[in-house]
Amino acid sequence: MPEFRKDPVSDHWVIIAPNRALRPEQFASGHGERLPQRCPFCRGHEADTPAAVAAYDRHGQACDDSAWQVRVIQNKYPALDADERPLTAGPAMYEIGPGFGVHEVIIEAPDHVLSFGTLDESQVELVFLAYRDRLRQLRSNPRIAYGQLFKNSGAAAGASLEHTHSQLIGTPLVPTQIQAELARSGAYFERHRQCVFCAMIEAELADGARIVFDSKAFVAFCPFASQFPYEIWVLPKRHACRFEGAEDGEIRELARATRDILARTEFALDSPAFNFLIHTSPFRLCPVSYFHWHLEFFPRLTKTAGFEWGAGDYINTVSPEDAAGKLRASCRDL
Amino acid sequence: MPEFRKDPVSDHWVIIAPNRALRPEQFASGHGERLPQRCPFCRGHEADTPAAVAAYDRHGQACDDSAWQVRVIQNKYPALDADERPLTAGPAMYEIGPGFGVHEVIIEAPDHVLSFGTLDESQVELVFLAYRDRLRQLRSNPRIAYGQLFKNSGAAAGASLEHTHSQLIGTPLVPTQIQAELARSGAYFERHRQCVFCAMIEAELADGARIVFDSKAFVAFCPFASQFPYEIWVLPKRHACRFEGAEDGEIRELARATRDILARTEFALDSPAFNFLIHTSPFRLCPVSYFHWHLEFFPRLTKTAGFEWGAGDYINTVSPEDAAGKLRASCRDL
Repeated sequence: MPEFRKDPVSDHWVIIAPNRALRPEQFASGHGERLPQRCPFCRGHEADTPAAVAAYDRHGQACDDSAWQVRVIQNKYPALDADERPLTAGPAMYEIGPGFGVHEVIIEAPDHVLSFGTLDESQVELVFLAYRDRLRQLRSNPRIAYGQLFKNSGAAAGASLEHTHSQLIGTPLVPTQIQAELARSGAYFERHRQCVFCAMIEAELADGARIVFDSKAFVAFCPFASQFPYEIWVLPKRHACRFEGAEDGEIRELARATRDILARTEFALDSPAFNFLIHTSPFRLCPVSYFHWHLEFFPRLTKTAGFEWGAGDYINTVSPEDAAGKLRASCRDL
Repeated sequence: MPEFRKDPVSDHWVIIAPNRALRPEQFASGHGERLPQRCPFCRGHEADTPAAVAAYDRHGQACDDSAWQVRVIQNKYPALDADERPLTAGPAMYEIGPGFGVHEVIIEAPDHVLSFGTLDESQVELVFLAYRDRLRQLRSNPRIAYGQLFKNSGAAAGASLEHTHSQLIGTPLVPTQIQAELARSGAYFERHRQCVFCAMIEAELADGARIVFDSKAFVAFCPFASQFPYEIWVLPKRHACRFEGAEDGEIRELARATRDILARTEFALDSPAFNFLIHTSPFRLCPVSYFHWHLEFFPRLTKTAGFEWGAGDYINTVSPEDAAGKLRASCRDL
């Protein structure tokens, strides 16, 4: 069964999840991915997957398995099990953590659509409404501390199935990166009495060099210290620490912003594999003035290599100013 | 020119290095890597590369370009420039750092050898002697704080040339991951009055489940909280914080240990792409009792995906106990 482990030297938790293992012989070692013949995510193949935990019709309302536009299932190979079980005891010096959680798959279209970018605006809006609804549900589970929403698109981004989908992992611990962002944004607030993300929005709009998209409620820019070429952050202009508190109008505009940056990226960079993820506040943290939910997007153009793993720092060969300029110039007719 | 940047939210530095850019259009987007026709690293092609900064003959002695067994050059597309230049000013809220450093390539064989694993023991020993010598040289540069040695083998591990080689990046700042390891190992020492790595060696040898290789002066094991399937750490049994202080006999045994784990990995996992890197003490830190140099090795079997980037925590689908068992069982005749 899965378990959280931490060693006394590194800074992050590891989820050891043999349940999720493909056999080692099935790992791709540069020979490409093998995709199944029959797609378990297509409408009509619902019996190939675990039962739906939620299904939404074209109005975002709950529906049954026959009329779904967005369907949510438990991951068949979950990184975390719903049930808590005894943990492996290792040497006393190592920290272990509770090996349970939630791992859902959000199937983003009933047809065999390969690219999120080709979904129309109303369908993308349904997907973000589903994210919000699942996060609200997850929040009511008292054993879950955080919900990590993320999308892997393309084999180079870690996807194993091509039918467009995203995932939600609910963890009993607040993840390392979220703890780090909370600590640093909290420290910034202490010093400046302002949310660091609100300050960043102001600074980026004033500077302009890294802006990709700007609308009434959202701004998208290539962060000043982008880890990856063409990395983009999308932030709501209204200060809010929780994604699941977004209003319907904000969800609609977020869908539009995400489609926009994806279209620009696909046009500028020949439809690369990509990931996006949402950073939001842990469930048990009261609303705070110092943290601000946001979406992070990055095409997978380069391979993380020995320097990055060793140093923990990143080499990015495209300046965010050049990246934003290129993205602004692409798809002028959007 | 390159520069270090840090944003107020994330925990790591980014080196923005447009000098190192392949043009964006040349990025591999899942179509495989394009390798040059003529290998600049082969003996006889020395004029295709920057001049050698060091060359070693078969006895590890300095030699000229005609008789080299291991040759060290400046990287033609360095992540950091040798010269310091003025930095880009961004909005005041962002931290920027000195944009200079050292970026060397260690060419590990004069012939067009594709795999480190096929080098004989004496050649691998020469490579590690070259690492030690370059690190000693780098240490004498008062502007350099740390030397990160690393190897990318195979396109999936971030290598762009196939001729076996490794790299050394000297940074004016101590990298984030090294700072984190120093902080955590320092805290462990405060509590337990023992080096955490020495404690780990004891605990792992006593437990046995994760041991891959054990010799007089070195031990190799899959760490309890392995981030990646089949990750292996190689540690000297003698406490020492600096790799460049290793004795000749230790270098010889390290070469043997590294060849051993590589042979086991290649046999067990069908010669995967891999990285290894050496973690050592920053140059300006006096010898310390709490940090212990070591080599980290990991085959690139899986893709880091949205969860890992979002949460900062890792999902590993192969338990280190299973991985070590499989590696111990492979190549019994070594």
